[in-house]
Amino acid sequence: MDAVVLLSGGLDSYTAAAVAKAEGFRLFALTIRYGQRHVREVEAARLVARALDVARHVELDVDLSAFGGSSLTTADPVPKERAIDRAEIPSTYVPARNTVFLAIALGWAEVLGAGDLVIGVNALDYSGYPDCRPEYLAAFERLANLATRAGVEGARFRIHAPLLHLSKADIIRRGLALGLDYGLTHSCYDPEPDGRPCGRCDSCQLRAAGFSQAGIPDPALRR
Amino acid sequence: MDAVVLLSGGLDSYTAAAVAKAEGFRLFALTIRYGQRHVREVEAARLVARALDVARHVELDVDLSAFGGSSLTTADPVPKERAIDRAEIPSTYVPARNTVFLAIALGWAEVLGAGDLVIGVNALDYSGYPDCRPEYLAAFERLANLATRAGVEGARFRIHAPLLHLSKADIIRRGLALGLDYGLTHSCYDPEPDGRPCGRCDSCQLRAAGFSQAGIPDPALRR
Repeated sequence: MDAVVLLSGGLDSYTAAAVAKAEGFRLFALTIRYGQRHVREVEAARLVARALDVARHVELDVDLSAFGGSSLTTADPVPKERAIDRAEIPSTYVPARNTVFLAIALGWAEVLGAGDLVIGVNALDYSGYPDCRPEYLAAFERLANLATRAGVEGARFRIHAPLLHLSKADIIRRGLALGLDYGLTHSCYDPEPDGRPCGRCDSCQLRAAGFSQAGIPDPALRR
Repeated sequence: MDAVVLLSGGLDSYTAAAVAKAEGFRLFALTIRYGQRHVREVEAARLVARALDVARHVELDVDLSAFGGSSLTTADPVPKERAIDRAEIPSTYVPARNTVFLAIALGWAEVLGAGDLVIGVNALDYSGYPDCRPEYLAAFERLANLATRAGVEGARFRIHAPLLHLSKADIIRRGLALGLDYGLTHSCYDPEPDGRPCGRCDSCQLRAAGFSQAGIPDPALRR
């Protein structure tokens, strides 16, 4: 069975993809260059796609920075050392990003004849983005079956979010149990000019807390 | 009030935009170059955007031809002189195209603080595409309110499809009553090398039947 997986180059999407692979899916990986300041993550996505031995890896440009509206796609500062409060949506939220990504993944899946989409969203150790919540994913799944020829003809799309209810530490434990090399991944929203993580954005904080709680050093910090 | 309108360069999206404008919306027009063989329509979209005096016109590249799966994005032949049967989805269907387009429009709308998206889909004189049906649009509207910061914070997105239940002839009559110049528009899926419409694809057939039923010559054919 084939599945389209959204691969950002970060820790979560790598793990979600690996879980799907362990379940027997052949993976078609999709990475979007959306005008993110941390386009460095796309290099990580290439390494991850290779490590996962995906059937095909497509990198696609969709320049959401044409609209702005996020500190990830504009010159607005990325918040640092923020007390992460899931009730507040931070400036790193990119309007409709997951909807755009899932829509493109859906198009590819339909062409492939694949009924499964995999996304590494997490609703526990996350920044409170609306498009990471279970009710959002359920609504997209419903949409997918109305939007497509396959849906009309009786196929059934499923959105797999295997990390949805896991803590970051549990995600890391799960990935390590699957033999993943997290040294390949990049999480930082606002890397230093040399590509190293800033250590202070939400994404760095969540990652560091996860490795800390799992009691494991982050292999990406050794490089 | 601001609205984001999907503008293809065709007759329907021009009319839908003009209806929204007549209702008092300030228009932000979005045109996607998705790898369509009739990229000629993007030039028409520029003319239409100017005629509508939109606040801003964004052209964005999202290369759906990376996946193929449609005669509009591959070298597969576009069906000609087909007896249009709405129960059968033809090869010109582009998987998830409207979902991708609406998702990007949603992102822009959220950045603008606009709650309204306008799309010129029609479920009467059309080619049976699944993502032109009322139930699809309702599902997208529901998704939009779950996907976004604005939706979480209580705003309400509305998808306007003012042509949904009109015949092509009625669309044309509506547009002419609004003073539209359909000579600016391009509908053909498979234009001749010089840009002229083929006259035989679904889109040309639907357009010709619409003008014929409205009892008006197509101004685009005089050029």
